[in-house]
Amino acid sequence: MSSPATTPAADPSGNAEYGHKPFKRARSHFADRITADGRDGWPVEAGRYRLVVSRACPWASRALIVRRLLGLEDALSLGVTDPLQDDRSWRFTLDPDGVDPVLGIRYLGEAYRAREREYDGGISVPAIVDVPSGELVTNDYQQMTLDLETQWTDLQRDGAPDLYPERLREEIDEVMDAVYQDVNNGVYRAGFASTQEEYAEAYRALFRRLDWLSERLAGRRYLVGDTITEADIRLFTTLVRFDAVYHGHFKCNREKLTEDPVLWAYARDLYQTPGFGDTVDFDHIKRHYYQVHTGINPTGIVPLGPDLTGWLSPHHREELGGHPFGDGTPPGPPPAAEVIGAAGRP
Amino acid sequence: MSSPATTPAADPSGNAEYGHKPFKRARSHFADRITADGRDGWPVEAGRYRLVVSRACPWASRALIVRRLLGLEDALSLGVTDPLQDDRSWRFTLDPDGVDPVLGIRYLGEAYRAREREYDGGISVPAIVDVPSGELVTNDYQQMTLDLETQWTDLQRDGAPDLYPERLREEIDEVMDAVYQDVNNGVYRAGFASTQEEYAEAYRALFRRLDWLSERLAGRRYLVGDTITEADIRLFTTLVRFDAVYHGHFKCNREKLTEDPVLWAYARDLYQTPGFGDTVDFDHIKRHYYQVHTGINPTGIVPLGPDLTGWLSPHHREELGGHPFGDGTPPGPPPAAEVIGAAGRP
Repeated sequence: MSSPATTPAADPSGNAEYGHKPFKRARSHFADRITADGRDGWPVEAGRYRLVVSRACPWASRALIVRRLLGLEDALSLGVTDPLQDDRSWRFTLDPDGVDPVLGIRYLGEAYRAREREYDGGISVPAIVDVPSGELVTNDYQQMTLDLETQWTDLQRDGAPDLYPERLREEIDEVMDAVYQDVNNGVYRAGFASTQEEYAEAYRALFRRLDWLSERLAGRRYLVGDTITEADIRLFTTLVRFDAVYHGHFKCNREKLTEDPVLWAYARDLYQTPGFGDTVDFDHIKRHYYQVHTGINPTGIVPLGPDLTGWLSPHHREELGGHPFGDGTPPGPPPAAEVIGAAGRP
Repeated sequence: MSSPATTPAADPSGNAEYGHKPFKRARSHFADRITADGRDGWPVEAGRYRLVVSRACPWASRALIVRRLLGLEDALSLGVTDPLQDDRSWRFTLDPDGVDPVLGIRYLGEAYRAREREYDGGISVPAIVDVPSGELVTNDYQQMTLDLETQWTDLQRDGAPDLYPERLREEIDEVMDAVYQDVNNGVYRAGFASTQEEYAEAYRALFRRLDWLSERLAGRRYLVGDTITEADIRLFTTLVRFDAVYHGHFKCNREKLTEDPVLWAYARDLYQTPGFGDTVDFDHIKRHYYQVHTGINPTGIVPLGPDLTGWLSPHHREELGGHPFGDGTPPGPPPAAEVIGAAGRP
């Protein structure tokens, strides 16, 4: 594809190379880290940075959830883009006059070019922008949430959970890597496949991995340890989109999420946990995928299904034990300005 | 669209006008009837006619099922086309040398033009061809099965059921009309919609009608009376395709057929009844829809799902009573040459 800077990105994050064979996800170009010690020149500081997301995007949604669970809403403000990119990519058309009220820009790409004047690569979310300079700091979706968890500790709320506990990191990383290859990115490899063989390979790896996850989660409430970790967050952001977009649009249709009793209960449990479901906008998700990927849905028609009311039904996963927030507590409700509209809720 | 005589038909029957707004199904052009008294010049006669179908096509599948239930296999021979039309429409590429062994033609269109030399309209299945002259007699999918039931009685097997009993015709016609508008043709109106509004209208009417059917069938085994009738056959041919193609490809995705316990058990009951499931080729169905409709699936990739094994699971509908074949008997197994290959079975 041409650069996402000049054509609508094919992928919610904007970091996909679409139409190549096989589908390859690009590495983040801006990988500076915001750390407690400021080693890359970007120290953790309340009010200094702005997180820019699309609520459609699974990669950006990780950061949305982590920010909520850790109570970083006041320390790290939030800009939400329109779920539909135009030819200049992600834009702030949901804001009054189409301008992000804090950054004063119309397109996320302006922050990329404030950082690197001649930049003409992909514009992706999640992105963290330095408010004083207007420069992009990072679009590294893999590192970003780990840093919110381990570097932003001084600014986290009282009772914030430890989402990346040191003693479990090896296991968490291992699970996340498998989930990334086969599930998070696997659905894209299936959906953007350009040959039947490439699709079939991705489909088989995806459902093999989902079967493995279903078995693993049958007797335990969370993926690693007995509390919510980053591994659960990364699996959740794909599962919550599964029936709404991946099942039909990406042809990941051996069965629906709702047909796997374990994974469906696991996903509902997380959805109903404060900080998860309250970040999910099904309207943004469906419109983005079905209207932006004209290469696989040329009509742009957005399905009315699936029926989403099941997301609110009892899951009974508390019977498995576990402590969602460990020694911590659940987050309070989201800030009023961030509450999901009725169109986006089940 | 251009005429299906020169471009691949958008619809399995070939009788759809696709890309117009809104979707309209064309009326059959050749509506002669084959009758006991031969009033249109086409008397019922054993061995004289050949039924040409695509196993992908729901309209043709009605005739496949009726022919099996009534034991007309010897009286009315069968030609099966490739599920993928080319630019000259339905073709006999499944036969040795690509030639129908009885009609001696490569394309069904040749029989149309034997009947009407300058014909350049749509080429549709089901079609009945007069073998001696090679001329198309009828492509009237609405009347064809009714005539097999009521005009071909002398050639039906011993124990053939009455699929269109006189005393129930008013009710059968009424149910079939509703099912035609909202279900049989409704899925096409949804799938070929060119605007969001047109799609939404078709989707809502479809699921309203499926809810109505589910309620009707909750306490009775068949749609009208207590035996299988033409009404059941016409509903079945859409239901059996629902999860395989209509749910994803046509965006009929409020839920899968498997999520409605009544309709799913009803469809399985029929599938497992001799004469129904043994005519169904899921491989032909999936390849046809996903590879021919490039306007809605430009990649031509055929989903590997859904898992079809459930079609063989117990349905328990016999507990509702009813007599599938009334005073008659089930048909024997299909002729060896007509047995569905492993790729097409659950």
